[in-house]
Amino acid sequence: MAMIGGGRGSFIGAVHRIAAAMDGQIELVAGAFSSDPACSVLTGQDLFLDPDRVYGDYTTLLEKEAALPADKKVDIISIVTPNHLHAAPALLAFEKGFDVVLEKPMAFSLQEAKLLDQKRKETGRELLLCHTYTGYPMVKEARARIASGQLGTIRKIYGEYPQGWLHSYLEGSHHKQADWRTDPARSGAAGAMGDIGTHIFNLLEYVSGLQVTQLCADINTIVPNRKLDDDGAALLRFNSGASGVLMATQVAAGEENKVCFRIYGDKGGLEWHQQDANTLLLKWPDRPAEVVRTGTPYVSAVAQHNTRVPAGHPEGYLEAFANLYRNFSLALRAKASGDAPTQALLDYPGTAEGIRGMAFIETMIASSRSTQKWIDLLV
Amino acid sequence: MAMIGGGRGSFIGAVHRIAAAMDGQIELVAGAFSSDPACSVLTGQDLFLDPDRVYGDYTTLLEKEAALPADKKVDIISIVTPNHLHAAPALLAFEKGFDVVLEKPMAFSLQEAKLLDQKRKETGRELLLCHTYTGYPMVKEARARIASGQLGTIRKIYGEYPQGWLHSYLEGSHHKQADWRTDPARSGAAGAMGDIGTHIFNLLEYVSGLQVTQLCADINTIVPNRKLDDDGAALLRFNSGASGVLMATQVAAGEENKVCFRIYGDKGGLEWHQQDANTLLLKWPDRPAEVVRTGTPYVSAVAQHNTRVPAGHPEGYLEAFANLYRNFSLALRAKASGDAPTQALLDYPGTAEGIRGMAFIETMIASSRSTQKWIDLLV
Amino acid sequence: MAMIGGGRGSFIGAVHRIAAAMDGQIELVAGAFSSDPACSVLTGQDLFLDPDRVYGDYTTLLEKEAALPADKKVDIISIVTPNHLHAAPALLAFEKGFDVVLEKPMAFSLQEAKLLDQKRKETGRELLLCHTYTGYPMVKEARARIASGQLGTIRKIYGEYPQGWLHSYLEGSHHKQADWRTDPARSGAAGAMGDIGTHIFNLLEYVSGLQVTQLCADINTIVPNRKLDDDGAALLRFNSGASGVLMATQVAAGEENKVCFRIYGDKGGLEWHQQDANTLLLKWPDRPAEVVRTGTPYVSAVAQHNTRVPAGHPEGYLEAFANLYRNFSLALRAKASGDAPTQALLDYPGTAEGIRGMAFIETMIASSRSTQKWIDLLV
Amino acid sequence: MAMIGGGRGSFIGAVHRIAAAMDGQIELVAGAFSSDPACSVLTGQDLFLDPDRVYGDYTTLLEKEAALPADKKVDIISIVTPNHLHAAPALLAFEKGFDVVLEKPMAFSLQEAKLLDQKRKETGRELLLCHTYTGYPMVKEARARIASGQLGTIRKIYGEYPQGWLHSYLEGSHHKQADWRTDPARSGAAGAMGDIGTHIFNLLEYVSGLQVTQLCADINTIVPNRKLDDDGAALLRFNSGASGVLMATQVAAGEENKVCFRIYGDKGGLEWHQQDANTLLLKWPDRPAEVVRTGTPYVSAVAQHNTRVPAGHPEGYLEAFANLYRNFSLALRAKASGDAPTQALLDYPGTAEGIRGMAFIETMIASSRSTQKWIDLLV
Repeated sequence: MAMIGGGRGSFIGAVHRIAAAMDGQIELVAGAFSSDPACSVLTGQDLFLDPDRVYGDYTTLLEKEAALPADKKVDIISIVTPNHLHAAPALLAFEKGFDVVLEKPMAFSLQEAKLLDQKRKETGRELLLCHTYTGYPMVKEARARIASGQLGTIRKIYGEYPQGWLHSYLEGSHHKQADWRTDPARSGAAGAMGDIGTHIFNLLEYVSGLQVTQLCADINTIVPNRKLDDDGAALLRFNSGASGVLMATQVAAGEENKVCFRIYGDKGGLEWHQQDANTLLLKWPDRPAEVVRTGTPYVSAVAQHNTRVPAGHPEGYLEAFANLYRNFSLALRAKASGDAPTQALLDYPGTAEGIRGMAFIETMIASSRSTQKWIDLLV
Repeated sequence: MAMIGGGRGSFIGAVHRIAAAMDGQIELVAGAFSSDPACSVLTGQDLFLDPDRVYGDYTTLLEKEAALPADKKVDIISIVTPNHLHAAPALLAFEKGFDVVLEKPMAFSLQEAKLLDQKRKETGRELLLCHTYTGYPMVKEARARIASGQLGTIRKIYGEYPQGWLHSYLEGSHHKQADWRTDPARSGAAGAMGDIGTHIFNLLEYVSGLQVTQLCADINTIVPNRKLDDDGAALLRFNSGASGVLMATQVAAGEENKVCFRIYGDKGGLEWHQQDANTLLLKWPDRPAEVVRTGTPYVSAVAQHNTRVPAGHPEGYLEAFANLYRNFSLALRAKASGDAPTQALLDYPGTAEGIRGMAFIETMIASSRSTQKWIDLLV
Repeated sequence: MAMIGGGRGSFIGAVHRIAAAMDGQIELVAGAFSSDPACSVLTGQDLFLDPDRVYGDYTTLLEKEAALPADKKVDIISIVTPNHLHAAPALLAFEKGFDVVLEKPMAFSLQEAKLLDQKRKETGRELLLCHTYTGYPMVKEARARIASGQLGTIRKIYGEYPQGWLHSYLEGSHHKQADWRTDPARSGAAGAMGDIGTHIFNLLEYVSGLQVTQLCADINTIVPNRKLDDDGAALLRFNSGASGVLMATQVAAGEENKVCFRIYGDKGGLEWHQQDANTLLLKWPDRPAEVVRTGTPYVSAVAQHNTRVPAGHPEGYLEAFANLYRNFSLALRAKASGDAPTQALLDYPGTAEGIRGMAFIETMIASSRSTQKWIDLLV
Repeated sequence: MAMIGGGRGSFIGAVHRIAAAMDGQIELVAGAFSSDPACSVLTGQDLFLDPDRVYGDYTTLLEKEAALPADKKVDIISIVTPNHLHAAPALLAFEKGFDVVLEKPMAFSLQEAKLLDQKRKETGRELLLCHTYTGYPMVKEARARIASGQLGTIRKIYGEYPQGWLHSYLEGSHHKQADWRTDPARSGAAGAMGDIGTHIFNLLEYVSGLQVTQLCADINTIVPNRKLDDDGAALLRFNSGASGVLMATQVAAGEENKVCFRIYGDKGGLEWHQQDANTLLLKWPDRPAEVVRTGTPYVSAVAQHNTRVPAGHPEGYLEAFANLYRNFSLALRAKASGDAPTQALLDYPGTAEGIRGMAFIETMIASSRSTQKWIDLLV
């Protein structure tokens, strides 16, 4: 694997490296870690990389690696740059024959995401989009329970992603994360809606197996002088007729990353919280709620596949992230060997999810500017 | 005290009697417990009442009790009938010189509520509207913390009331509660929005000290053949510029009465759940969250006033309800004696809250029928 | 009902009055509230009592009330004095033909408790001993589940009662509670072991249906200059062969009244915490843990009988206490009317539990002074 | 790094490999994974190792690796075999000049542990003993808070490790874990006390900074036909005069790995649960409890050093384990380079902890066979 972005001081680059390394299936051997070549070199040293494979820019990386013999060159390119630098390196990576890991949101705009997917199909490559929360065993268990009909027909879908880290104005004070995430030139049309709104939107569609068809949004920029939204909520309508509520905010002072969903069918409901990630609550109208737990013998095959340690030894965010990488690499290997796919166990988010995420962002912004109540979510 | 409604098999009548009795300040001595005189008589026997003061209808009760000598007649009339029978007995009670305890919502319509308040003012009487959740010590603590500015300027207000008991069609199967609460002739313009939506609406305004000025609602009747809404959500705008989200549903299969609010200011946030009623979480961006608890030495005077036992011995719903009754009776006694008011400690919900609640119901229904995004909440 | 003790400033007297009043089955009409007759008079005024039935001492109360006509005199005497004043008024009450409610521990010594029970039997009266925690619906549910064999053969029994209020030296600073509870002349042979150790001991025997036969205790007086123990723990052996651990401390700085038990059989386990009193966790080796909740349709008849409001509206300590009073009064009424007993629903702690509690106290103290490991608990 | 043990089907071997790989500081390049050479080969293939460095037995591994040139040979030997195979390979590894990672308990007996430490000192090598729970950031935070005196003088120390996986007889049914852990020939003098008792014992001493001097134990073999203890509890006395209670059981049916400690000083208390590993509760007598969380800006430097992702993204067991490996490798590197030690940040459990653990096991067993109450814990 080679990495684009993720130089010293990056948050998500380090996370990707841990996630990729965890299971001993993927080895980082090359990188263009920064637009500053000196930083790229230093990062390569930190990672014990061969200096010959530490590049000053992503174009050089992709060209040089593509020219290496097959037994030497990398197979996966992991792109962990800010949003405005997602599509261009990914497009080139596809053209050069690499599979791609990409941070979300997929692109700078819906249009750009579609073009990227077109290129991917033309080149026959694969893309992993890092909607990390779908990697948690109990999120997969939730999806499996709903898919098997245990909750009956889904009626109500509630999703939340409150954070507090942007409750005050951090921009311009050497806070790299705050700087680019609140900058329209780098982040895109949305701030909070792109950064965390897409995560909870993706999670609701993933777990429910349904798709949002219409929404009605209230988007706010709460902190004075901020250039992008830092808060929002929406009423949702799904393709099955179910309805829902989505909330994502970065100004909930004192909250960490309190991702949560609750989904109710006509037979029962379920609830999951990232802060108690190894628990899935199942709720029933006529019998006690059940506390489903990671690592137990009674959970689904897909939950077991995405688990590493026995019940009670908590697995966390890095393991969820590693599940994306492991499933992606196993799926690529199965594709390469022509093995029968084991898709059910190896599912990972890709371009379909990425395009819907971009459509979500643009529809949320459109709705917030409209006096009309319901706006269609079109892809 | 005399009670109108609350005959054998009533849920809320028994709750009122426990709440009124708990502190030894109020004695139930008369009642017209049912529109069925035989049921009224039997209920009176259950309660060890003097049969002479058990009446077959509320008009007789109010007339006979009003005619008793001052040292004998009741002072408070507690009305616990379905919504369509709130205003008429309350009006007559005011005319006959009684103070009134009334279940929420205040009336069958906003208009009726206003007329009732007009009569109250004309007759110089007082009304307690039973928004029970405002009686919890930690709800009062939350209000006190916000009022004192500890959270800074309030930005986001989230309120929830999910229930599951109406997730299936119970009407017509001898389920008294389901029958009247889903019947437009007895419940009014709304089902869930009147029954529980008003509670969470009131709670948000009470705790935040703010008022909703506009809302955008999605109201649903999810269970087939039901005549009134059993689900809803709304985006909210408050008079200070704060925004929020409100959710109330009766079809969250497996949920009990999971009332919850979360409120964030620019300095911090707070969170309360009825199912952990003696805990108020205070959240701060730069230091650990604090677990504020009922019965501790460090809580506000108003929380202490509304507490009966030491910390760690949980107080519950009945104590919250009893706090309404106790505060109302103490306030009436203070008024009677001309004592300086201790309003801060003896606050209770009254007609102002009731009228806003009726306006909320009617605005939610209007919004749900509108294609316009934001609808003003007018009283 | 008449009350002995519980004058102004008393904690437990007020709790008893609320508990007795809650269900409208018991009316407080007389009292000797204090050894200070003036205080007794004032307390009677607070409670709107007939001054003729407010007495300066308990002997007068018992004699005068016994002399009243049957339709006028009280039937129950509630004794809420410190430990050294339990036996004498109770003995006299039995002799005068009254049934008795008594705070725990039952007496000043095991010997005294036995004498009291002998008198009770001779006079044919009944005694309610206020082991409040056994009044919680979910405690009764736990007992019912174990009794029905759902957990299989019980193997391990863990009980805890940590408090923090005596973590510093409060004695002598006008803290009435601390004063008498740490005074050997009023509290008896033990401090913490009598005050809270007996509660958790009783709870373990009540829920498990087993009896402690041997124990090995470590008892400490941690706060300097304190005269009685404020901390202790014991290894336990039960009559079935099960073993356990009991912990009770008053110096766990920052803890409230964190009563908890966990019991494991060969088929499953259960866990209950007072601070989440309406939840009983059932744990299974091969399927999800279940969250059993007060007020739900699936709990046992005895749990339902001891519940007043729907699920999700929390019931607390005062309701648990009121369950003792209600069950006692209903049992007395059944006895009076010669009705077939409904003992299973109306169970309450009495002299058998009281005598075992006194034996526990004395055995704990004996063990703490012994170099021998296991000491028999003899009654 | 090379690994001894951890062949296909091993639980803890896979955990060690993930933990070692996570931070990109340690590379597994050799192994003798099984006493079955074929299994060792297959395991090497699974791990993409050079077949020349996959050995059929540990002696060969240590000899061959020691003979490699310095820039090629491994520096660390990780030993993850059952207890009876800890000391011999570790001794040889020291003799051959390697540093060692060793699973707990350190050896088969206290005597063996002392001999091993003697050899370590003679050879000037280092040993990491995998008391994983000490690697959690909030465990380190707890230790830091106590060390800094925030809780005042420590008075009470409670530790628990309940599990349920051995609640029934699994031995002999091809359950590798159950087989060796309940076999005196492979596990040593104790079952549960060695397997999990040592963990909670170590955790209590680590967090409190105190040492157990005396104990009084009740050890049981609850499941019929089992050959070693599966349950135990002990009263504890510490060198400062503090007292405590320790519980460890493998028959708590339905429990996972519910490690927990609670420690109280004269100023406050703290509480930690593995199942909510990123939370440390601080409790105070006169102000709200505080919820200290992993990844926040206000925690100690040592907690921050042992954290990888932002607050709210849970870190788990594997990260705790990886902290041991990372700190060990960083400390070895600092030693090699002669850098000033940063011991406070790089602390890890070693032979001192291992010897105390073995003394704990032997003293617990001795106490359980004694009629004397208190037994000294001697090393």
